[in-house]
Amino acid sequence: MPKKTDTRDRVLKTAAALFRSQGYHATGLNQVLAEGGAPKGSLYFHFPGGKEQLAVESLQLSGGELCEQLKQVRSLDEVVELLGKRLVESDFQDGCPIATVALDAANESEQIRQACDSAYISWERVIADHLEQQGIKDSRALATTILAAIEGALLLARTRKDLAPLRQVGQHLTLLIQKER
Amino acid sequence: MPKKTDTRDRVLKTAAALFRSQGYHATGLNQVLAEGGAPKGSLYFHFPGGKEQLAVESLQLSGGELCEQLKQVRSLDEVVELLGKRLVESDFQDGCPIATVALDAANESEQIRQACDSAYISWERVIADHLEQQGIKDSRALATTILAAIEGALLLARTRKDLAPLRQVGQHLTLLIQKER
Repeated sequence: MPKKTDTRDRVLKTAAALFRSQGYHATGLNQVLAEGGAPKGSLYFHFPGGKEQLAVESLQLSGGELCEQLKQVRSLDEVVELLGKRLVESDFQDGCPIATVALDAANESEQIRQACDSAYISWERVIADHLEQQGIKDSRALATTILAAIEGALLLARTRKDLAPLRQVGQHLTLLIQKER
Repeated sequence: MPKKTDTRDRVLKTAAALFRSQGYHATGLNQVLAEGGAPKGSLYFHFPGGKEQLAVESLQLSGGELCEQLKQVRSLDEVVELLGKRLVESDFQDGCPIATVALDAANESEQIRQACDSAYISWERVIADHLEQQGIKDSRALATTILAAIEGALLLARTRKDLAPLRQVGQHLTLLIQKER
């Protein structure tokens, strides 16, 4: 018999994938339970705070996973490669794991807004750490611009179903990093 | 008695505002009709293609309006100023008028995806035209990066409820433009 924590993990992973690709409002709790193989009515047992709690934990999970991946990369090219691969392998459904919910739900829930913001801040810090190791002084400011440009590139690439915007942005950001060194 | 076109225009403008701030899925047709002051059941009379048609026309309307505004600006600073003002005046609800729907609905409707993509392409062209007038050779490539960085900055600023990311990105983009001149 599967353990209680298995069901919770499965539901959370399923929810994270759905929120990531289609946003908060398009994701129904019944869809999460069905795709997660969890019995109807079990959601509030595992997530007493309901959909909002599920979204917050999904954002923390997705945000944390990408944060760990960003820590491992050695260059901006590798970031572009990693994100491009995710886009192509998901048929351009998986761009930024936070952006869809940030845009369609952060306005109406302060908890969700803070979870989105925390993910962005954590990525920005990792980027700033990488830049600092390269001897860049104003690493935090440049990290903000790198994060923003990559976020926008993921949005354009996803909408266009084409990696070109992501690759183009990668080239210009490399120039900008060289200039700041 | 209001003309037929008045009702249609009002419904479309209301829908465009709702899609822009909360996305496709959070926007219910009853909400659009109620806020647009149109009788229940009149939606399919004006928009036989239903919600999808309403979204496509809303994206065309919002995309066209911003395109005209972008044609009027004389510098990147003015773009940052214009978009920052929209964010602040809407309590950080109105960022990019296309992005929320692009992320939460373009995957499921090819018509919506194309309407989003067309808006981005039209803005990119206007930016490229501005750059070309400044004597920049590879204006199209730089326009892609400027658009992406501003889109990401709007996303971060909206999530953070703070204009700082937009201002920071504006400064780095100005550097990048000077470098390409």
